[in-house]
Amino acid sequence: MSQINLTFPDGSVKQFDSGVTVKDVADSISISLGKKAVAGKFNDVAVDLRQELNQDGVIEIATKDSAEGINVLWQTAALILNKVLVDKYPEMNFGEAHVDEHGFYLDTEKPGQTQVAETDFDDLTAAMNQIVLANDSIELTSISQQEALKNAGDDPYQKQLVAELAQDGQVAVYRLGDFVSLAFAPVLSSTGKVKIFKLLSVAGAYWKGASSNPMLQRIYGTAFYKQKDLDAELARRQEAHERDHRVIGNQLDIFFVDPKVGAGLPYWMPNGATIRRTLERYIIDKELAAGYEHVYTPVLANVDLYKQSGHWDHYREDMFPPMDMGDGEFLELRPMNCPSHVQVYNHHKRSYRELPLRLAELGMMHRYEKSGALTGLQRVREMTLNDGHTFVAPDQIEDEFKKILDLMIDVYSDFDIHDYRFRLSYRDPENTEKYFDNDEMWNKSQKMLKAAMDDMGLDYYEAEGEAAFYGPKLDVQTKTALGGEETLSTIQLDFLLPERFDLKYVGADGEDHRPVMIHRGVISTMERFTAYLIEMYKGAFPTWLAPKQVEMIPVKNELHMEYAKQLQSRLLAHHIRIDIDDRNEKMGYKIRQAQVNKIPYTLVLGDHEVADQTVTVRKYGQKDTETMPFDDFVTLLNHDIETYSRKN
Amino acid sequence: MSQINLTFPDGSVKQFDSGVTVKDVADSISISLGKKAVAGKFNDVAVDLRQELNQDGVIEIATKDSAEGINVLWQTAALILNKVLVDKYPEMNFGEAHVDEHGFYLDTEKPGQTQVAETDFDDLTAAMNQIVLANDSIELTSISQQEALKNAGDDPYQKQLVAELAQDGQVAVYRLGDFVSLAFAPVLSSTGKVKIFKLLSVAGAYWKGASSNPMLQRIYGTAFYKQKDLDAELARRQEAHERDHRVIGNQLDIFFVDPKVGAGLPYWMPNGATIRRTLERYIIDKELAAGYEHVYTPVLANVDLYKQSGHWDHYREDMFPPMDMGDGEFLELRPMNCPSHVQVYNHHKRSYRELPLRLAELGMMHRYEKSGALTGLQRVREMTLNDGHTFVAPDQIEDEFKKILDLMIDVYSDFDIHDYRFRLSYRDPENTEKYFDNDEMWNKSQKMLKAAMDDMGLDYYEAEGEAAFYGPKLDVQTKTALGGEETLSTIQLDFLLPERFDLKYVGADGEDHRPVMIHRGVISTMERFTAYLIEMYKGAFPTWLAPKQVEMIPVKNELHMEYAKQLQSRLLAHHIRIDIDDRNEKMGYKIRQAQVNKIPYTLVLGDHEVADQTVTVRKYGQKDTETMPFDDFVTLLNHDIETYSRKN
Repeated sequence: MSQINLTFPDGSVKQFDSGVTVKDVADSISISLGKKAVAGKFNDVAVDLRQELNQDGVIEIATKDSAEGINVLWQTAALILNKVLVDKYPEMNFGEAHVDEHGFYLDTEKPGQTQVAETDFDDLTAAMNQIVLANDSIELTSISQQEALKNAGDDPYQKQLVAELAQDGQVAVYRLGDFVSLAFAPVLSSTGKVKIFKLLSVAGAYWKGASSNPMLQRIYGTAFYKQKDLDAELARRQEAHERDHRVIGNQLDIFFVDPKVGAGLPYWMPNGATIRRTLERYIIDKELAAGYEHVYTPVLANVDLYKQSGHWDHYREDMFPPMDMGDGEFLELRPMNCPSHVQVYNHHKRSYRELPLRLAELGMMHRYEKSGALTGLQRVREMTLNDGHTFVAPDQIEDEFKKILDLMIDVYSDFDIHDYRFRLSYRDPENTEKYFDNDEMWNKSQKMLKAAMDDMGLDYYEAEGEAAFYGPKLDVQTKTALGGEETLSTIQLDFLLPERFDLKYVGADGEDHRPVMIHRGVISTMERFTAYLIEMYKGAFPTWLAPKQVEMIPVKNELHMEYAKQLQSRLLAHHIRIDIDDRNEKMGYKIRQAQVNKIPYTLVLGDHEVADQTVTVRKYGQKDTETMPFDDFVTLLNHDIETYSRKN
Repeated sequence: MSQINLTFPDGSVKQFDSGVTVKDVADSISISLGKKAVAGKFNDVAVDLRQELNQDGVIEIATKDSAEGINVLWQTAALILNKVLVDKYPEMNFGEAHVDEHGFYLDTEKPGQTQVAETDFDDLTAAMNQIVLANDSIELTSISQQEALKNAGDDPYQKQLVAELAQDGQVAVYRLGDFVSLAFAPVLSSTGKVKIFKLLSVAGAYWKGASSNPMLQRIYGTAFYKQKDLDAELARRQEAHERDHRVIGNQLDIFFVDPKVGAGLPYWMPNGATIRRTLERYIIDKELAAGYEHVYTPVLANVDLYKQSGHWDHYREDMFPPMDMGDGEFLELRPMNCPSHVQVYNHHKRSYRELPLRLAELGMMHRYEKSGALTGLQRVREMTLNDGHTFVAPDQIEDEFKKILDLMIDVYSDFDIHDYRFRLSYRDPENTEKYFDNDEMWNKSQKMLKAAMDDMGLDYYEAEGEAAFYGPKLDVQTKTALGGEETLSTIQLDFLLPERFDLKYVGADGEDHRPVMIHRGVISTMERFTAYLIEMYKGAFPTWLAPKQVEMIPVKNELHMEYAKQLQSRLLAHHIRIDIDDRNEKMGYKIRQAQVNKIPYTLVLGDHEVADQTVTVRKYGQKDTETMPFDDFVTLLNHDIETYSRKN
């Protein structure tokens, strides 16, 4: 029998007989590891414990606490679910089972009118529990492609998967009782460990993620080794659901997307448009005060512009198809605004006196994303970026970088955003030839950025090899409510575009010099930032951003409406967004509705208020009310709006 | 000899021998008409006096004072210019000669490095004058196609024109001495009447107007029968040039278009962007106050949306080509915003309580225009419309129509626009079957619009047959500075889209009803309105719109700069757009520059001003200055801005 060499995480190498299983290897290290082992990793690919190893490689044993350890539990749960569904619906077709960060999902297609619904989960869970309790063994084996195809029957997805998985006419499968499943990923050797699981939801998903394919039904679930982990996950899901900008966006009528009219193309309803308009005016005014000059540039340009900029060669798969306008002209929806701002720069001969020249725009861009990747306002195909490009002389980089950081920190504070980290990205010192070729510029500018961060006393971490091809950068990393990390702001130096477009300025010496471009975005796209804010605020926008700022409730329409109307016109003169709820409903109901709609201030107006020219104010989320003179309320409200305050 | 019947403008019919010329017909009416005749119109087509008539038809005799009378003079001048150019540059190629509202133009191509320049006009004019003085006769004749082709020599444009003009192997030509010209349009019978002419300018123009064709050189000129008409035309041209938004747009750095990057796709420089942003905020705030709800909707949609709306069938040639996104999805840049607003309406079930529902947007749209038709900001391919759609119950049409008119009149007054006319367009009562089929709706709504106009005491004129297919409309017609007429605002009823998209609202009766849509634009597109304002204001924007509002000039930088900086920060706190001119230039020069840049207020700051805390104010266009306390100036300025005033 031939021998193979297996390398362990600590670097040691051991010899084994070829055909040894991962479990055997674990056992050979220690009995306790052999017991704790649930899966393995061979050459960085997850493998089943039963997998036979026939070549040299790097082996790692996975226990419950590792990523592979939880994945194998989830894949096993999906396998059990699959068996239960086959038993219950023999005609059902099946796509793939996958895991994500939070659990597993299985794609299904039930012929006929009805689909699997969440109301079926109790039955399915009971059936799964029986299999778990029986602790049935799951066998890993291999069958011929013909037999696998026969097993697939009329299921078109399984047939396709058999073809994709087959190697040398054989297909790896798991057997659980009489159920045979294609083996995509490792599972446990028996069903007994899947005690703590939960089916979560159903949703539509295109076969293979392509919208031209049939829509399958995806069943989501999760499982854990410990009850407290499941409890934590369910709590996280509840919190995420409550913050999910798509859910809140729908509840508060902020936006909608209709894939039939255009996937990834959001419609901003009046409430959302108010938020967006307020954001747009806010950031433009901030930027004007910070010395930026705003421009409007076209969303279309001749494709030659993007050939010159390099986007056509390096970014094409994210771009929309060009439009043939006849006469040899091809127009392209821009994927980025930088080439447009270069046009503005190059429209005049520039002098060193004009630098730093700060151009900014709310620039609409279009990027091709696969329909499966599109998510509410977070991942879209049409977006408007709070974009800016500063053209500086090389020795102005550090100062300008600080100015941009000042602006960002100022803006973050206005929005009450505090949970973020700075990441400074350099080129990879081992691979300098992978980057724009100007060593001096790289060394100098990387030092400048670091010095600026230190000077400003900001915490940051450094990431070698994370720079763009064209220059070093700083990213501001925030956490999304759903646990992901997102780049909210960025400052990127660019040595390349100035070369490609032959940018110049006349220096104090009368000679031509090459400027450096700094790309920067403060609040990213209107779409992404609004999604971020919805999740951060849980829909309870601070007064200055709230679509509706004040709801007035007359205790009795016939007695108190006149007073309400008086106050309304006085508030409108202050440009307050106000409504009077004059419906024939009970006052308690109206107050609850104002809370559901997360309106910052609810004013109740009855006999006392009319008599004293006061208002009884209830702030969103508070149970207590306060009665105060109307003028005091106006002062309070204006202070709240002017200071962007979330609390008073 | 056979006879033909000619019908005269007064309806009378006379018999003539076939082959009678237009001149003969004029002579037959009266000797004086024969003398005054310069051309004719046969079946509504301009004809030469020498034209033989061989069939029945409607004849009209044209004298100098008619449109045909001036056109024939211009065509004769173009013919003389053509002869002169052929004599001077035997190798030159020629496109067509045409007339427009103001004169003639001739397309030319001079082989070699140099082109005809305006500096050549004196020589050309002298040569033309010789031909005019000689009063050479111009003969109308016909030659064979072969002979015409031989005459064309190597000239590719003339060869193509011969092929286009030839009928039965014959081509009509004019002979002027040894020069033979293809006969496109009537000319005079001799050159002596073209005494008062002027060559005006040269410009590039694509052969046949297609940018894939070679660029020819177009020579513009004009001519008149009377010197005072030429003088008036030259004065008009001077005025038009001074108002031309493209000229001012360049002088004041408002926008530019670079056809290489995209014809009809303007770049708004910071000055232009300031104007546009101010317009956008102004109109949005006006509309919000008037009860509109603003939205943002995507510029792209599935082409199916435009198939449903009818644009694909009826408006396709003005639309951009669809983009193939794969998976059978075709996206289209929208040519209009109405289908998008219909999506917003249809996103919720609507109740009669919500009507009138007023949706508005600064909606970007794309329309395919031939590159030859594109003009600065006036005719573009990408535009942002101040668009709005009101959804009303049928009995709300009149009230809502009045509200929109109120808004328009209010806005026009803020911009100091007074030179406009209302045109009320009805369906053609003779051809009601050409329109959307609902007699009752048409009759009722046309009456409503008329009643509203009468009620409001507005002057208007009625145009039968000018309604859209889908409903009657009101247009606000303004004069452009260049003499053209332009529709600045419009209110259009639409009975069709609500049908096509099955729009409904639940009435007070609990039943579904069909709303009517009202399309309305108040200040049209940002592009067109800005062009209009530039021309109307001659670039001297009122303070609230001016890119730069105040220019401060310290008499001596070293003595008065500190005071200037103090005032600057106080003005910035009022959001005033201000600059300090600290260049090392003479004060007189700086003051002139501020006038050239049409800045509303220039402040001169010297010893007296510093001592007394005053400013010396010069308003744009005025020679007098006034010294006043700084605080008074701030009051004056804020009043000026808040009242949108052009004068104080």
